[in-house]
Amino acid sequence: MSLQNQIAELLDRGVSEIHIRKDLEEKLRSGKKLRVKLGIDPSGSDLTLGHAVVLRKMRQFQDYGHHVILLFGTFTGKIGDPTGKSQTRKPMTDEEIAKNMATYIEQAGTILDVSKIEVVKNGDWLKDMTFENVLRLAGSFTVQQMLHRDMFCERMKKVQEINLVEFLYPLMQGYDSVAIKADLELGGTDQTFNLLAGRQIMKAHGMEPQNILTVPILEGLDGKEKMSKSLGNYIALLDSPRDMFGKTMSIPDHLILRYFVLATTVPLEEIKKISTLLKDGENPRNVKARLAREIVSLYHGESVAKTAEEEFNRMFQEKGKPDDMMKITLKNAGHTVLDLVIKSKLVESNSEARRLIQQGAVRIDDEKVEKLEEKVPVQKKMIILQVGKRKFCRIVFSK
Amino acid sequence: MSLQNQIAELLDRGVSEIHIRKDLEEKLRSGKKLRVKLGIDPSGSDLTLGHAVVLRKMRQFQDYGHHVILLFGTFTGKIGDPTGKSQTRKPMTDEEIAKNMATYIEQAGTILDVSKIEVVKNGDWLKDMTFENVLRLAGSFTVQQMLHRDMFCERMKKVQEINLVEFLYPLMQGYDSVAIKADLELGGTDQTFNLLAGRQIMKAHGMEPQNILTVPILEGLDGKEKMSKSLGNYIALLDSPRDMFGKTMSIPDHLILRYFVLATTVPLEEIKKISTLLKDGENPRNVKARLAREIVSLYHGESVAKTAEEEFNRMFQEKGKPDDMMKITLKNAGHTVLDLVIKSKLVESNSEARRLIQQGAVRIDDEKVEKLEEKVPVQKKMIILQVGKRKFCRIVFSK
Repeated sequence: MSLQNQIAELLDRGVSEIHIRKDLEEKLRSGKKLRVKLGIDPSGSDLTLGHAVVLRKMRQFQDYGHHVILLFGTFTGKIGDPTGKSQTRKPMTDEEIAKNMATYIEQAGTILDVSKIEVVKNGDWLKDMTFENVLRLAGSFTVQQMLHRDMFCERMKKVQEINLVEFLYPLMQGYDSVAIKADLELGGTDQTFNLLAGRQIMKAHGMEPQNILTVPILEGLDGKEKMSKSLGNYIALLDSPRDMFGKTMSIPDHLILRYFVLATTVPLEEIKKISTLLKDGENPRNVKARLAREIVSLYHGESVAKTAEEEFNRMFQEKGKPDDMMKITLKNAGHTVLDLVIKSKLVESNSEARRLIQQGAVRIDDEKVEKLEEKVPVQKKMIILQVGKRKFCRIVFSK
Repeated sequence: MSLQNQIAELLDRGVSEIHIRKDLEEKLRSGKKLRVKLGIDPSGSDLTLGHAVVLRKMRQFQDYGHHVILLFGTFTGKIGDPTGKSQTRKPMTDEEIAKNMATYIEQAGTILDVSKIEVVKNGDWLKDMTFENVLRLAGSFTVQQMLHRDMFCERMKKVQEINLVEFLYPLMQGYDSVAIKADLELGGTDQTFNLLAGRQIMKAHGMEPQNILTVPILEGLDGKEKMSKSLGNYIALLDSPRDMFGKTMSIPDHLILRYFVLATTVPLEEIKKISTLLKDGENPRNVKARLAREIVSLYHGESVAKTAEEEFNRMFQEKGKPDDMMKITLKNAGHTVLDLVIKSKLVESNSEARRLIQQGAVRIDDEKVEKLEEKVPVQKKMIILQVGKRKFCRIVFSK
């Protein structure tokens, strides 16, 4: 591929924003090998297609000979939530962090060439930083600048507490760029502020500030929220081919093209053709099947993808779930099985609902449910409810 | 003095606010000897009657057997102004700090019994504090709390920059109270926020929070602004008896009683009588002379005070400065001598003004001025302009 095409591929596909594009283009054109930074929270979890968006962009840089650095935020991880209120941000032990890092790298290895990455931990330089140096970092910022950040701005308006520690996180993340001499930092669009903080701190240290490239946040299976483990609306990189295929088939139609761009390596030219097909009335189900094949191929290879598709189709036919299944939306406040069956209107009466459940004729996501009062886990964003052999209802839980 | 009277004297005279009064009263009543903290900026300058207000309160505590701790903010002093913009807050060297501390203690010795004070420097514990501990301190605060501080609130409204470092100062000052196990912290009313921060940080460290006692800010000779060296509206503790007397005589009448309460040891009963005298029509000049005597006596002894008064009167009569001297107010934008003479209307024409200045017939604050274009220093709040032997004008510079 010509250098010009490489540059276009790097800077145009699946990119949300570049800061400063002119600088970055110049560096790439000069043939300079860049130090490309990605900061990672070592709190550990399954990586999803959401994480994959930025990792694929990293891989592209790697493919063109740039040096990729995974920076684990071990320092912040060991601190946890300073208010002690949040259960989700307990301080982690060294062992937990090491384990999470290993898991992350294993999963990232499905995308990156891990033999060539550099792995660093910010605890190595932040742990012993003195108060004096913290003050020097803080001195580069005004309170007004911090408050300008979208997230803080919003919380001020909503009168939601912002812990003072949260104003210090950008300093750490920014200093990390100084420590590793980053030329370019990648991140999701929600990280823009922190990435820019890096520029500011590098300038204050007399260094040439890093460029910044942000990628879009991928929506989850529900088509609305950011894909995330905690919302249950995700496809994990380590999902089985079957799950990966099936979950992809469940995304709403309006996300098909976005998933092609952000979650596959199908060339943009090709994606344009698919877009035309859809406009011309092609059944979205067929296009989605292509998408699912592409995604499964990336993580499990083409032949496995083919098998997954066949299996999916067979299961689908056997079960007879119709493609244009009925769909209802409910508030996600811990519904019981009985409640769901009644609301789905797949039965004639409440007593019929009870009887069918007790007879074992009701399934949720292919699992038989027999307890009337059993509750669907609140993190579920969507389920498929089946009553008897032929009646299906897709239930979406809104917030 | 009975314990009850001691307590009243400590908590009622020249006190702006006490937090929490009930707690503090109880501690005092129990006979406990308190560790009383006063934080001092070691940027060094002449102490004034403004500083003396809190030092006198400290002395009272000392007189009743409490332990007084002078805490020098050496850590902050060595950092200076993080933005590098302010010329007034350059980082200080160890030598400068040591010199400023010695000067401070020497001057404070005119009020405190320095043989019994404890002197500490916060650099001793803040210098080696790690980032991790800084974050723990920050974790006790929300951004909203910080913004609530009067000073910050005002600057936000005025769209004036607040450096992020300024949000960290209260953490340092607060942690100092932990380090020295303060029972009580004194300060001017402008320090209330920082003193309260100390309570919060002590609580977070599982300690009983200090009580807080703030004293009023004394107005300077101009009767409006806080007394301060930089505004030139001050009486220094090391001023000569003559200067001290003369400057006191120059305060506006409405400050007489306030100066009695905050700058002398005249009993409150006696001050009430003086107040009645004034209401009954006594010439404020006479009452001011009493005030000046009291102040000079405190720092130089009674007999010196008497001499100073005689000298002042003699000088006054000789110079014939009338008590009801004309007074004008000008904007303090670097007026030239010529300009001032013309504006004072003490001359008939511009050419007369020129001639008189060149002849050496014009004095500003008793100093001859002969250069037409010489400018009065902008920090001056007030001058006395004299033309010839008998014509005087008091010129006040407003902002």
